Amino acid sequence: MASQPIPGIQADGWFREESTMWPGQALSLKVDKVLFDGQSDYQRLTIFKSSEEGKWGNVMVLDGAVQLTDRDEFVYHEMMAHVPLCAHPSPKTVLIIGGGDGGVMREVLKHDEVERCDLVDIDGLVIEQSKVHFPQVAQSFFHPKANTTVGDGAAFVQGKENEYDVIIVDSSDPEGPASVLFGEEFYSNVKRCLKPGGIVCSQGESAWLHLHLIEKMTTFLRNDIKFASVRYGMIYIPTYPCGSIGCLMGAKDAETDVTKPIRELPLAVQEKLKYYTADLHRAAFALPAFAKQLNQDA
Amino acid sequence: MASQPIPGIQADGWFREESTMWPGQALSLKVDKVLFDGQSDYQRLTIFKSSEEGKWGNVMVLDGAVQLTDRDEFVYHEMMAHVPLCAHPSPKTVLIIGGGDGGVMREVLKHDEVERCDLVDIDGLVIEQSKVHFPQVAQSFFHPKANTTVGDGAAFVQGKENEYDVIIVDSSDPEGPASVLFGEEFYSNVKRCLKPGGIVCSQGESAWLHLHLIEKMTTFLRNDIKFASVRYGMIYIPTYPCGSIGCLMGAKDAETDVTKPIRELPLAVQEKLKYYTADLHRAAFALPAFAKQLNQDA
Repeated sequence: MASQPIPGIQADGWFREESTMWPGQALSLKVDKVLFDGQSDYQRLTIFKSSEEGKWGNVMVLDGAVQLTDRDEFVYHEMMAHVPLCAHPSPKTVLIIGGGDGGVMREVLKHDEVERCDLVDIDGLVIEQSKVHFPQVAQSFFHPKANTTVGDGAAFVQGKENEYDVIIVDSSDPEGPASVLFGEEFYSNVKRCLKPGGIVCSQGESAWLHLHLIEKMTTFLRNDIKFASVRYGMIYIPTYPCGSIGCLMGAKDAETDVTKPIRELPLAVQEKLKYYTADLHRAAFALPAFAKQLNQDA
Repeated sequence: MASQPIPGIQADGWFREESTMWPGQALSLKVDKVLFDGQSDYQRLTIFKSSEEGKWGNVMVLDGAVQLTDRDEFVYHEMMAHVPLCAHPSPKTVLIIGGGDGGVMREVLKHDEVERCDLVDIDGLVIEQSKVHFPQVAQSFFHPKANTTVGDGAAFVQGKENEYDVIIVDSSDPEGPASVLFGEEFYSNVKRCLKPGGIVCSQGESAWLHLHLIEKMTTFLRNDIKFASVRYGMIYIPTYPCGSIGCLMGAKDAETDVTKPIRELPLAVQEKLKYYTADLHRAAFALPAFAKQLNQDA
């Protein structure tokens, strides 16, 4: 392995997820073999097969940061899709910005009510390689209701109005091509794109690592973009830094309470979910004391 | 560092928490310097100062497994103490088995109702070194209501009867000196030591790593030891493997619902907690779908 200068992969065959975003700590995974490594126009994409004993399966890494593993991808994908969709009375049109692995779209399309799911990811290489190395995740790209665009999600929402019931922002971290997806202008466009009753659900980073960023975002979503309610929910997933990430949610109308499921998936679908339950939906919004201010309205 | 054969500490100055209990994955923490390393009669104790940038402070390791860090110890200690104590109407006498760092006892003694807290840890070296390197955790050993014994917790509960309102089993992992604390005989003794209305709360391992062990334990606690109710709660803590561990709880009487807080800490105490809230107490028992059977009675 030492001859391959792949970020994070060490001479002894372990991957160590070092980053300036979480200095001094790292997830380490033992590597079996590298399946893909390449530079797109936007980022470095590495996919490796982890060692059999660890059961994490294939692992996708962007610029040194783990995006998903076969073993625990369901946690993030189920929560990012089912929390907003089960909190919406009738989610017919859904937009996913980012999410180029297809995992969130796979979950969105389990809702029969959804008539069309648009997905816009800036990096076609991620989509292409997901189809090769994460077929059970990327299966959604072949769904008849899926409508995929390779392009800039921030540009995509400019000028559109009143089009989507739910918008899911499944971005990578704010250092890199996704940085614009954490800003005010983007959210102003997102809100305008939402129909009445619409909900946005964004990858909201970790309360352990980025509490100030999350506080800044909840503040501008409430005070400047004027979402009627803003809530942060915990998503506990082993292979993200500090073992958790969040869904940062905004509701366009005051009647919407994103913390409470009001619809259920068909029973046969529910029974196959590995993470999401209605109880867990509600529980996700109970925050650790050190972060509870995120869910307190001014 | 390479000259020191300390488990997990690598030549490049990082600690990597490898274990056969979680093969192929590991938490890595950058080491500033080793503060203590020694072999007791039971286990190898290593304490290191992690790098400034990571903010994890001092880290305690037993036989290569992280026990606590300065930065996130509050998560586990608050939950292991306040969940059982807030679910009990009048916790006057508390026994902690293990917990030689003093952290759970520190939280227990925040409840004014507690008249006496006994702690029995088998390894005096852990207690001694905690006082040196984790003074804010080990402060509880100097509390007038604390009553510390260096000894075998499994033997301590033999022959006793009807003595404690709450018993907290703060053990290390089942491989090592704590293995007996995961067995039926031990829990039979624990139940007899509990007063009517008593609650046991044990370090219940991770649902991601040890689901079969936890299922086995919930089954024998229900069917063989005949606790009136048995529940597993999630504790999400960054530096434990997979980012979570659980509290496995048994109630002696059918009227007790450990999932609901019925008492509050004094407001001035509540305001200083960094993790536990009454909402989080309830939320902890909403399990991921893949583990929800743990909280379903037969």
